[in-house]
Amino acid sequence: MKILFIQTGGTIDKDYPKTNAGYAFEIDEPAVSRVLEKSFIGFEFEVISLFRKDSLDITASDRAELKSFIETTSYKKIIITHGSDTMPETARTIGSIDGKTIIFTGAYLPERFKESDAAFNIGNAIGSVNVLSEGTFIAMNGKLMSPETCYKNPESGLFETK
Amino acid sequence: MKILFIQTGGTIDKDYPKTNAGYAFEIDEPAVSRVLEKSFIGFEFEVISLFRKDSLDITASDRAELKSFIETTSYKKIIITHGSDTMPETARTIGSIDGKTIIFTGAYLPERFKESDAAFNIGNAIGSVNVLSEGTFIAMNGKLMSPETCYKNPESGLFETK
Amino acid sequence: MKILFIQTGGTIDKDYPKTNAGYAFEIDEPAVSRVLEKSFIGFEFEVISLFRKDSLDITASDRAELKSFIETTSYKKIIITHGSDTMPETARTIGSIDGKTIIFTGAYLPERFKESDAAFNIGNAIGSVNVLSEGTFIAMNGKLMSPETCYKNPESGLFETK
Amino acid sequence: MKILFIQTGGTIDKDYPKTNAGYAFEIDEPAVSRVLEKSFIGFEFEVISLFRKDSLDITASDRAELKSFIETTSYKKIIITHGSDTMPETARTIGSIDGKTIIFTGAYLPERFKESDAAFNIGNAIGSVNVLSEGTFIAMNGKLMSPETCYKNPESGLFETK
Repeated sequence: MKILFIQTGGTIDKDYPKTNAGYAFEIDEPAVSRVLEKSFIGFEFEVISLFRKDSLDITASDRAELKSFIETTSYKKIIITHGSDTMPETARTIGSIDGKTIIFTGAYLPERFKESDAAFNIGNAIGSVNVLSEGTFIAMNGKLMSPETCYKNPESGLFETK
Repeated sequence: MKILFIQTGGTIDKDYPKTNAGYAFEIDEPAVSRVLEKSFIGFEFEVISLFRKDSLDITASDRAELKSFIETTSYKKIIITHGSDTMPETARTIGSIDGKTIIFTGAYLPERFKESDAAFNIGNAIGSVNVLSEGTFIAMNGKLMSPETCYKNPESGLFETK
Repeated sequence: MKILFIQTGGTIDKDYPKTNAGYAFEIDEPAVSRVLEKSFIGFEFEVISLFRKDSLDITASDRAELKSFIETTSYKKIIITHGSDTMPETARTIGSIDGKTIIFTGAYLPERFKESDAAFNIGNAIGSVNVLSEGTFIAMNGKLMSPETCYKNPESGLFETK
Repeated sequence: MKILFIQTGGTIDKDYPKTNAGYAFEIDEPAVSRVLEKSFIGFEFEVISLFRKDSLDITASDRAELKSFIETTSYKKIIITHGSDTMPETARTIGSIDGKTIIFTGAYLPERFKESDAAFNIGNAIGSVNVLSEGTFIAMNGKLMSPETCYKNPESGLFETK
């Protein structure tokens, strides 16, 4: 089995790199690579970076590019890391694609943080992508949800189902 | 959905508590509780401790106790943390139980370690338990495997399928 | 021996708290408290927060307030966490105060980061404050420097002595 | 300034390497190297490993070897990482050496642990070695102590002065 991981940005990838004028938080290298490196992985995978955006800045054009990329890649198992604010919207735009299992995940705290939930969430997405034969889903808060019925509760920050 | 987590011991739970004569590595509180605490969990769960053993020390009697416990609990989704050396053996002893999804996982480095794979593996097990309707499985190295056909490769330490 | 720790802000204290509109990096609770909590401390101390600013935003008025606070407190051993960009400037403004040992430190990566240098730097400042009887110093990069002669090299980001 | 770091073993260096028969805790590579690597160090240093022992296993012959090594090295600033149980005893054996500043430190939790005090303690030792012109000391619990008068309190585990 082979899994393709696609970086789109969001909290999970926020880092504190050195810039000319000092240091600043910005979306940097895909966090998923660092998580997989230390997880004693036994399957084949590839990590690619499509864009590095806060999910509120992702445009209709970005979503079209992502969808087109997924449609043309030969990978059938795909995990997309994405900011949480518009994750259901992007997932609904992708919709179901014949023969492909697509799971969106992200994090509440950057992978660089000691207390980050990134490794848990990526493991969680992999656990579902491994066994689902088709469909597009959201894996957050330890739950697997349909993008059609889930939303991010603005009070709790957690994903819930209508 | 509700998930029951059962501690049996193994590397994942190794800690360095203060003892009378100093400090020593030993199997301590369930690591799964610490992982869930920082993972922004959105489902109901319970963590119970059945035993705290290196998996090489788990006996036929321990396995019978674990099986009996699983058969009598009302939980249908169960994740068992377990040492890796005899994980397939214990999973085969449990076998399939009608209407229950049971996933074994563990870790190569204790959850207390900076580089631990514990959070990833627990997330991975949850991702599979969420979508599988029945059966007993092993989730290690980012893969989901049948205990009937998988074994731990003594060279690489990774789980493989015959 | 008693040590007073004063928070002024800077990278060391940057966190990712939940805000109304999502999550954002901001200067939050004093990182020094979290470092001391897990360092098996055997001395008495107090942590106070004077302000929470990027060091480029610290004003002459802030520095006067800090100096006045140090002059009036009864503590003789004082460690100040501060952003690195204007750390020498603030330290020069404080100057030497009779009978007081004052050490400035900070961090290149927030204490919340896995790879943070915060605990090292705070330990380093304590190691010097413990043995110096008087004066105002900068402890960064594992070195103890005079604010009169040190500056932050804009290329390397490290503190050097003229 | 140049600092020599000497590994003798103890909790700080405990790791969980793969062995033939599985994984086991043992004293491995010097933790001080990992701490210095991520601390934005601005001074020259060398790390050498003399032995890798639990401090209860350090013999009179080991202590003589350590003392002889320190006497013959050209380094004048020396930090020794050591298990806590016999740290004062070893430090008393070394005693004062003309023109040399020697500081012993260690950790309550291995550097590999998320909650380790290793980076703090090493920073602490460096902070003192930087400013002391001569003598042999113990830096633990954020305090600098004389080996002649300090001991490890068996109840609290903390170092105290008689």
